[in-house]
Amino acid sequence: MERIPILRMGKLLLVTIQVDMHDRLAMTLQDDLTERIVKDGAKGVLIDISALDIVDSFIGRMISNTASMARILDASTVVVGMQPAVAITLVELGLTLDGVRTALNIDRGIKLLERDLS
Amino acid sequence: MERIPILRMGKLLLVTIQVDMHDRLAMTLQDDLTERIVKDGAKGVLIDISALDIVDSFIGRMISNTASMARILDASTVVVGMQPAVAITLVELGLTLDGVRTALNIDRGIKLLERDLS
Repeated sequence: MERIPILRMGKLLLVTIQVDMHDRLAMTLQDDLTERIVKDGAKGVLIDISALDIVDSFIGRMISNTASMARILDASTVVVGMQPAVAITLVELGLTLDGVRTALNIDRGIKLLERDLS
Repeated sequence: MERIPILRMGKLLLVTIQVDMHDRLAMTLQDDLTERIVKDGAKGVLIDISALDIVDSFIGRMISNTASMARILDASTVVVGMQPAVAITLVELGLTLDGVRTALNIDRGIKLLERDLS
């Protein structure tokens, strides 16, 4: 597959990252996501990374950048489903996911975003 | 990645199929999904196939079987996000996705399942 699907749930968009990210896939995702935020008038973006065992500096930066782009388009981003080992690695690598909020799972992420909207 | 993540949303489970299916991945998914239905007490399963350009008889049967397993565990399955070309191919191949309901997108799939539950 060459794209990561973006699912619409009400006013939110859900992206589930399941495959290894490479440059082009990340850029395609950012293009698609910004376009969908505008087209669907989305107010929030959920990025699920529960399938990722490893988050390296490339993916970390990609998530940060994507969240910044969404913010400029007036949509908040919440990263959900981070595995404990990933949190440990991120801190050890000094990656702080600037400006990105996290939630334990998708239910809590939705609640967090819905609270923003109300 | 070796597994397809299963996301919990309230009483529903969401599976997004993004990668090409092969035997072992399909079996792992069925194992994981049936286990999660029991563990989470899920009443509905949404299978998103919007990323699939092609659904062959293997995937068609896999989806049908998964839905049958879920039904035995008292959970309904709705397939969402089917591309028009996939619908055409399925009919041409004579695959009817027995016992599987479909919805245009995830929002409508959730509504369909919530109506079942109420």
